Amino acid sequence: MAARCQLTPVLRRLARSTTEVSRQPLLRQSLSRPVRHISTSRPRLFQRTAVSQKGEFTSEKYPDIQRDTRFAQVTPEHVKFFKDVLGSESAVIDGVTGDAADDIAPFNSDWMNKYRGHCRLVLKPGTTEEVSKILKYCNDNMLAVVPQGGNTGLVGGSVPVFDEIVINMSRMNKIIEFDEVSGILVAEAGTILEVADQYLASKGYIFPLDLGAKGSCHIGGNLATNAGGLRLLRYGSLHGTTLGIEAVLADGTVVDDLCKLRKNNTGYDLKQLFIGAEGTIGIITKVSIQCPQRSAAQNVALFGIESYELAQKAFREAKGQLGEILSAFELMDEGSQALVRQVTGNKSPLEEKYPFYCLVETSGSNAEHDAEKLQSFLEDVMEKGIVADGTLAENETQIRSLWTWREGITEALGHLGGVYKYDVSIPLKELYQMVEDVKARVDAAGLLGDTEEFPVRAVVGYGHMGDANLHLNVSTRRFDERVEKVLEPYVYEWIAERQGSISAEHGLGLMKKKYIGYSRNPTMVGLMKNIKNTFDPNGILNPYKYL
Amino acid sequence: MAARCQLTPVLRRLARSTTEVSRQPLLRQSLSRPVRHISTSRPRLFQRTAVSQKGEFTSEKYPDIQRDTRFAQVTPEHVKFFKDVLGSESAVIDGVTGDAADDIAPFNSDWMNKYRGHCRLVLKPGTTEEVSKILKYCNDNMLAVVPQGGNTGLVGGSVPVFDEIVINMSRMNKIIEFDEVSGILVAEAGTILEVADQYLASKGYIFPLDLGAKGSCHIGGNLATNAGGLRLLRYGSLHGTTLGIEAVLADGTVVDDLCKLRKNNTGYDLKQLFIGAEGTIGIITKVSIQCPQRSAAQNVALFGIESYELAQKAFREAKGQLGEILSAFELMDEGSQALVRQVTGNKSPLEEKYPFYCLVETSGSNAEHDAEKLQSFLEDVMEKGIVADGTLAENETQIRSLWTWREGITEALGHLGGVYKYDVSIPLKELYQMVEDVKARVDAAGLLGDTEEFPVRAVVGYGHMGDANLHLNVSTRRFDERVEKVLEPYVYEWIAERQGSISAEHGLGLMKKKYIGYSRNPTMVGLMKNIKNTFDPNGILNPYKYL
Repeated sequence: MAARCQLTPVLRRLARSTTEVSRQPLLRQSLSRPVRHISTSRPRLFQRTAVSQKGEFTSEKYPDIQRDTRFAQVTPEHVKFFKDVLGSESAVIDGVTGDAADDIAPFNSDWMNKYRGHCRLVLKPGTTEEVSKILKYCNDNMLAVVPQGGNTGLVGGSVPVFDEIVINMSRMNKIIEFDEVSGILVAEAGTILEVADQYLASKGYIFPLDLGAKGSCHIGGNLATNAGGLRLLRYGSLHGTTLGIEAVLADGTVVDDLCKLRKNNTGYDLKQLFIGAEGTIGIITKVSIQCPQRSAAQNVALFGIESYELAQKAFREAKGQLGEILSAFELMDEGSQALVRQVTGNKSPLEEKYPFYCLVETSGSNAEHDAEKLQSFLEDVMEKGIVADGTLAENETQIRSLWTWREGITEALGHLGGVYKYDVSIPLKELYQMVEDVKARVDAAGLLGDTEEFPVRAVVGYGHMGDANLHLNVSTRRFDERVEKVLEPYVYEWIAERQGSISAEHGLGLMKKKYIGYSRNPTMVGLMKNIKNTFDPNGILNPYKYL
Repeated sequence: MAARCQLTPVLRRLARSTTEVSRQPLLRQSLSRPVRHISTSRPRLFQRTAVSQKGEFTSEKYPDIQRDTRFAQVTPEHVKFFKDVLGSESAVIDGVTGDAADDIAPFNSDWMNKYRGHCRLVLKPGTTEEVSKILKYCNDNMLAVVPQGGNTGLVGGSVPVFDEIVINMSRMNKIIEFDEVSGILVAEAGTILEVADQYLASKGYIFPLDLGAKGSCHIGGNLATNAGGLRLLRYGSLHGTTLGIEAVLADGTVVDDLCKLRKNNTGYDLKQLFIGAEGTIGIITKVSIQCPQRSAAQNVALFGIESYELAQKAFREAKGQLGEILSAFELMDEGSQALVRQVTGNKSPLEEKYPFYCLVETSGSNAEHDAEKLQSFLEDVMEKGIVADGTLAENETQIRSLWTWREGITEALGHLGGVYKYDVSIPLKELYQMVEDVKARVDAAGLLGDTEEFPVRAVVGYGHMGDANLHLNVSTRRFDERVEKVLEPYVYEWIAERQGSISAEHGLGLMKKKYIGYSRNPTMVGLMKNIKNTFDPNGILNPYKYL
C-alpha cells in the first residue's frame, strides 16, 4: 500500500519551536483578550502567550524572596567606573544618575512579561577584557549581576529580580573563525543563533541546535541554558558538540578553555560545568563548537496511530529503518491536534482522527535515497498495522504544512486562554501515561469539561518523542485556584516517582529553583552548592535563582 | 572512472585499534628480542609492544616521585575490616597477612609492564555499597587507593605507584537494564566493553564507543578515561552519549546521578566531571548511556593521495557527499605503510605508492544506497584529481583486509624495535606538518637513516583524521638518549604553539601528569585543583597522577 498525499492549505512555517517560544503569528485569530495577573507567591505556571502590558514586579509576585542585604546598591560612583571601562555611551544604559526607565524596560522583563526586575543599570561589554573588568569590580564591591543573552528564556533566568546589574552580551557578536574542513566554529557568545546558522549555511554546515527563538537567542545563552531543541535527536546535546568555551568568573578571572579540538584528554572537562549553569558560575564570552554537514535533502511524513504502545513501536521501527537519516520524531495527541483544528479551521492532513499522530523527518545527503527509505518505512509500518494512516510531503511547501500541525500547538493553546505548561522528561515507556493520569485527576475533581462551567478545557500532550521530552499542557478557560491545587505538587511527584526530570530543556531559573529536589537528590544538590561556592563565593552571579 | 578492486590476501581483522592496544598477533613475525629497560627519571615514552618479563618498579624509574607520608600503611587490622565488608575470600587478594605476590602481580602492573607498583592488597567489591564502605574506611584511615577497571590504559593511570590499595571493579559487571525503544543502557562499571556491545548487538544496537582493548576494558574505565576510539567521528564523545553515572566519592558518599533521560536541565551537569577524571574524584560504579542503532551495512574504501592538502580536500568531500553514513576517515602516510609492507610482506592494495592513504568507512541502514554513495564519491574525487587511485572493498573479507593497513601499523612498529609514541590533537590544517617538522629535526641531528648506524629508522604519522587525532611514531633501532633529547620538549612545545592537545585520547595518568601545562593554562590547572580538593580533600584517590 502506498502512502497517500493529502495536504492542508499552505500555512507559513515557523522556525520549529522546541522551546515553545514563537513570536510570529501563525494562526488566523488575533489575541485581544485582556490579560489578568494573578497574585500569589507561587511560581506562575499559568501563562498567556503574548502579553502586551507591563507585568507586575517579580518581587511583588514572590514576596517570600527577599533582597540579599549583602549586596550593595549601585551608586553614581559605580556608574562612572563602568562608563570609564566601556568607553562608549551606548554601552551603558544608566538609570542611576538619570531616568532611563523606558530604555531599561526590555532588559528588566522577560518576553512573556512573567518576570520583571528593578534593574537601573545595563552594561553591554564589547570584549572579554571588559567583562572581566566589570565582574572584578562588581565582586570587589558586592554588586550583584545578571548575565543576559537574547532574553528568550522561559523560566525567568535572564532578568533581574531586584536591582541586579544586567550584563547584556549583544555587542559581543562576532564570528571569530570557521574551519571549513573540520567544521569547527568559534564565535563570541552574543552571536545570534540564526546569524551563526546562516553563516554556516553559506559554508555547507549547520549549527547543531535549532529552536523557535533562534532569531533572538544568543549562542552563549544557548550554552548557558543547555538548550535542547529539535536537532538533539540527531546531533546530541551541547555537552557533546561544544568543544570549548571562554568564560569570565565572578572575580574577573578569564577561563580560557576555547579548545578547537574534538579530542583533548588533559584534565577535568571544566567547560561542561558552564553548559547549563544559567550564568551562575561565570559568564560565557566565546564558544567553540563542532558543526555538522548541512543535509542536502529533507523529507517529512505524518502518521495516524491507534495507541501510545504503537507509537513506541513506530519510533523503534523508524530508528531501525531510517537509522542515520532520522532527524525528528515528534508525538502529538488528538487533543492537541483538535485544538489546532479549532483555532486554525484547517482540515487535518489525514482523513480520520487517531488518538496519536507522529511526525517523522529525515535529513540526508541524497534526496532519492531518503525518499525511498521513508516510503518503504511507511509501507512497512502500515502493512504491520503499526501505523493506521500516513501522508508523505512531496515538496518544501508540503513539508512546511505538515510541520505546522506540530508547531502550531503552542500558539493554538495561547489563543484559547491560559495554559499550565510542563516541560518534562519521562522514561519513554511511561511518557504519555502522565497525560492520562493528569487528565483523569482533573476530571475526577470535576474541573474538566466541554462547557463554560468547567475551568479546564483540555489536558493535552505532545513533544519530542525521540528525546522522551513531553510538553504537558493544561488548557484553561479562566484562572481557578482549584486547578493549580490539583496539578501541583501532583505533577512533580509523578515525575519524581519515575525518575523523570522536572525540566527537560527549559532550565531552572527562578521558576523551578524551588523544585530541583524533585529531580535531584540532596547529595547532588549539596555538591552543586559546593561548585557554586567554589566559583562564586560572594554569590554575585545571577542570585535568587537556580539552586 | 570506476574504482578498481584489487586486494591483498586475507588478514585476520583486529578489533579496530584506536588506543593502539592490540593484544592479538596480527602479523607474521613473532617477537623474540630481549627487552631492555632504560633507567631514567623521565616518563618512558620509549616503548616496546608486548613485554613479557616483569618491569622495574615505577618508584625506581621515577625517583623524584616520593611516597606521600600522610598515607597510612595497610595493616592486618585494615585487611580484617575489608574481609568483613566483602565477605567472600575471592574478593580480597591479601598480600599483607600472607604472601600473594603472584596473585597481585597482574593488578600491580599495566599490560605493557611500563609501570609497576608495590600494592599488597586488591579489593574487588561486588556492590556500590561495598565500594562506599571501602572508601569511607580508607578516607577515615588515610589509606590511598587506585581505582582499576580492565587495566588497559597507556599512561599508567590504573596501577599503583607505591602501596596504594587497588579497588578492582571486575565483579561489578552486570547489565542492569536496556530500553529497546529508547536505546538507553544501564550497566555496572565493571562490564567489559565487548560484552556490553555483544549484548547490544542482539538488540540491534551498538555501544557508541569502540576500541582495540574492548575485550578487556571496562565501560567504567572508558568513562573514567573519556576513551575516544573510532566511533567518535560518528557518535561523538562520551560527554555527549553518557546520560548518567553513579559514583562513590572519597568519603564514601554515593553520588546517584544515574539519569536515564536524554534531557535533564536541573542544575550543574556534575557527571561530566567524572568523565575523564581518571578516578581522581570518585569511583564510577554504574553507567547510563545512549546507544545508537546498529547499522545494517558497512563499506570501506582505500585511497592513494598525492599531498596532505589533497587529503584534507578528500575529507571535506567525504563529509559533504557521504554525510550521515561516514563512520571513519583514517589517514596513513607512506612511511607507516612501508613499515606494514616490510613486516607483513603483503602487497599494497593499490598499484602505486602515494605519500598519503585514506581509509574511508561508511555505515548505514541500506547497503545498496551506501555503496552507490561511496562509488559515486570515489568517482567524483578521482575525476577532480583529489584522489589519485582508490579501491573499494566488495565483501566483509575485503573490508577486513583493507582495515589491516590501518590497524597493522602499531604492531608493525612494535616488531621493528622501540617506538616513541605521541597521541596528540592538532588543528587539522597543521596536523601532518608535525610529522614533517619532527622528521626534519631528527634528520638534521644526524639520527635518521636507512642503515644500522642511525638510531632512528623512520618518523611516521597516522591516525583519526576525522577527529584531528594524530599518532606520531618515531621508530628506532636501539635506545639512544640523543633521540629523546631531540624529540622533547620540542614535540610538546610544537603542540602548545598550535593550541593542540598533548593527550588526545589516552589521558594523563602518571606519564603525562607533568606535561599538562603544555595544553592547559595555569588558571585551568588551578580550577582543576580546586575541584580535586572539593571532591577528595585527603587526596586518597589515585595519588601521584593526573594533576
